[in-house]
Amino acid sequence: MDSYSQFALHLQPSAIRAVSKAIHGKKVVSFAGGMPHPGSFPHEELAAISAEILTTHGAEALQYGQTQGYAPLLDTVGKYLAGRGITGLESKNLLIAAGSQQALDLVARLLIDPGDLVLMESPGYPGASAAFVNLGARVEGIPVLADGPDLDVLEAVVRRERPRFFYVTPNFANPAGVLMSREKRRRIAELATLHNFWVIEDDAYGELFFSEIASADTVPLKAFDSGDRVIYMQTFSKTIAPGLRVAAIAAPAQVIQLIETIKQVADMFTSSFTQMLVNEFIVRGYFAAKLPTLRNLYQGRRDAMDQALREHLPEARWVTPKGGFFFWLEMSGDFDTQTLLAPALESGIAFMPGESFYLSAKRPTNAIRLAYSREPEALIASGIGKLGELANVARELSQHAETSIVG
Amino acid sequence: MDSYSQFALHLQPSAIRAVSKAIHGKKVVSFAGGMPHPGSFPHEELAAISAEILTTHGAEALQYGQTQGYAPLLDTVGKYLAGRGITGLESKNLLIAAGSQQALDLVARLLIDPGDLVLMESPGYPGASAAFVNLGARVEGIPVLADGPDLDVLEAVVRRERPRFFYVTPNFANPAGVLMSREKRRRIAELATLHNFWVIEDDAYGELFFSEIASADTVPLKAFDSGDRVIYMQTFSKTIAPGLRVAAIAAPAQVIQLIETIKQVADMFTSSFTQMLVNEFIVRGYFAAKLPTLRNLYQGRRDAMDQALREHLPEARWVTPKGGFFFWLEMSGDFDTQTLLAPALESGIAFMPGESFYLSAKRPTNAIRLAYSREPEALIASGIGKLGELANVARELSQHAETSIVG
Repeated sequence: MDSYSQFALHLQPSAIRAVSKAIHGKKVVSFAGGMPHPGSFPHEELAAISAEILTTHGAEALQYGQTQGYAPLLDTVGKYLAGRGITGLESKNLLIAAGSQQALDLVARLLIDPGDLVLMESPGYPGASAAFVNLGARVEGIPVLADGPDLDVLEAVVRRERPRFFYVTPNFANPAGVLMSREKRRRIAELATLHNFWVIEDDAYGELFFSEIASADTVPLKAFDSGDRVIYMQTFSKTIAPGLRVAAIAAPAQVIQLIETIKQVADMFTSSFTQMLVNEFIVRGYFAAKLPTLRNLYQGRRDAMDQALREHLPEARWVTPKGGFFFWLEMSGDFDTQTLLAPALESGIAFMPGESFYLSAKRPTNAIRLAYSREPEALIASGIGKLGELANVARELSQHAETSIVG
Repeated sequence: MDSYSQFALHLQPSAIRAVSKAIHGKKVVSFAGGMPHPGSFPHEELAAISAEILTTHGAEALQYGQTQGYAPLLDTVGKYLAGRGITGLESKNLLIAAGSQQALDLVARLLIDPGDLVLMESPGYPGASAAFVNLGARVEGIPVLADGPDLDVLEAVVRRERPRFFYVTPNFANPAGVLMSREKRRRIAELATLHNFWVIEDDAYGELFFSEIASADTVPLKAFDSGDRVIYMQTFSKTIAPGLRVAAIAAPAQVIQLIETIKQVADMFTSSFTQMLVNEFIVRGYFAAKLPTLRNLYQGRRDAMDQALREHLPEARWVTPKGGFFFWLEMSGDFDTQTLLAPALESGIAFMPGESFYLSAKRPTNAIRLAYSREPEALIASGIGKLGELANVARELSQHAETSIVG
């Protein structure tokens, strides 16, 4: 039984993978994964660019590439991030990863020694906590309020013990959907400098904000990083296409050099071909042109879900997201949303029970994550309607059970 | 100074990356990296397939995919490996990785606890030893003879201490270029079962054999694996294109399940688009049709280098490779091939000094790895000619230095 490492013997498949496997290939209205609307993928532009790149630059697109990334894409990303408010980036401050999950894993390998304390928002992204726990970190959650993490808790923790880093998602956090205030962004950067910890900023959704706010509200925390403590991550999975597997890391040059050495061992380099596709897509202006359409698309779906929730799950509480892909619902009382999953899947509706997103010792069971990104508005309306019915049935059953026991 | 993990503080950039960075973007005759001939890349077929996939299956190619891999590609790889002599593989025995460097890293993460003993051929592939050392393994080298690793040494080691695994490259090992005998393949599989260690088989070059041998001589060690102890890796980097980043792992189902969980944290999934490209390329028969051309191409280059070496470096010793990409030369006496690198790079010739490939405590400095894969025959002839001149100059200088000291 000692054929595998101790690490491997403790591996736990993720909750999202269990749901994703359960529905794979089936016709399901899925509010489970944070999947972009497939109709938003730029098939035609990418088909034209693919053919052109392979015909005119095939030798480069198909050959081994540099570990740090395709040089023109590093430049393109630097310029793009300057437009987002992160100025002063040079090539030496950038690295291309195969999606932001890899970016997370590489940075975690750079920073974590077994036993290290690391912090993240709670509820937070399980793909991040898995990457940290797998390296032996002690992960502690900082509760998320309507305007971002509770900084009183954060300050108390960092005064007690220096964490290695604080992993944050300031723009429309997965799963809480919350937008961090500008003041909190500034303050976290200050605390990181003062208490000498890193900030890992995951900005997957910053471009997907809705009309009630402005792009200035989503300026990355990295823009306030005068102490050089922020390692910033940007993925093109939500804004171009996840199937290309292209993300970027922006960080101090020394951090990038070390990550480059880790990435060389992890997978040597990210596909030259898909990096060139992303680069051309941005350089030709398709990316900038596509963003308003995407914002509009997801805002329509957000509105549809907000409306349906008011109608069919009025007793739940939520903060309506101003961007991104997710609603985070807290059901009333001691409702265990895990019990809703099997009947929902049977009715062809998928969602994520909230328990696995919490990082506290006591993990509330009454929350639910609903992605509105993948399904069209009509299916959002009918799917939430169905979910509301199932929740009512579950509630009645549990009340009935209580009554029987009492009676 | 404790801003990074202990692991990160001990990272060493690889020797090959140093050479690769030194020559990046420069006009150099490179015998350094194991790069396929760029003219061998199937630009046109891939351009046509790309456009077709994105147009007709764009929603799937660009969306999130399953961590284990694109299901039709798993089937295709299973059938392909059956043709190579590895029978009985089902989907549950296969997983797609983003190149064989990632396959190595994933398997290393599955198997290695800090302090574990792992074995590999010496000289051996530094990308593998780096992956193992980074996880805290003690790496011990098994000397390579003309027909594969010295099994007397292997037996002595495994009787002394059970290693976690033995990493082997039976077909045209990088860097030694050697073909392992059928008898040694069978014996290693037996020893693994008997002494309860894993075998990691890296088969990057098995399809690229030359006319003096037959495909039966390159049947994978995995084909002799009656004890289910072999984890087999196949990359399409040398036979289709490295820029696509597609490789496969074949292993017992339980191993695949665990690797899947590790890969989910490492990068979630390999690009759906490039997996579909590789699948179509194989299914349409392009892959099978391309292999004889590739063998012919690299055989011509092997012949050109063999001839040039006889002419210009007659005092060196080597086993002429019967496949793959590399010559492994041992220079006479105490020649330090590292001293040849700077003058060679100045003359526009790149190669890899051999020292970094050794895994013994005493690392010989008189070896050299020469890849004949990338350069055309005329440049191989002139490049080796130049290298021969520089070696003569270096030898005279060192003799002169000795004489001066003595006189």
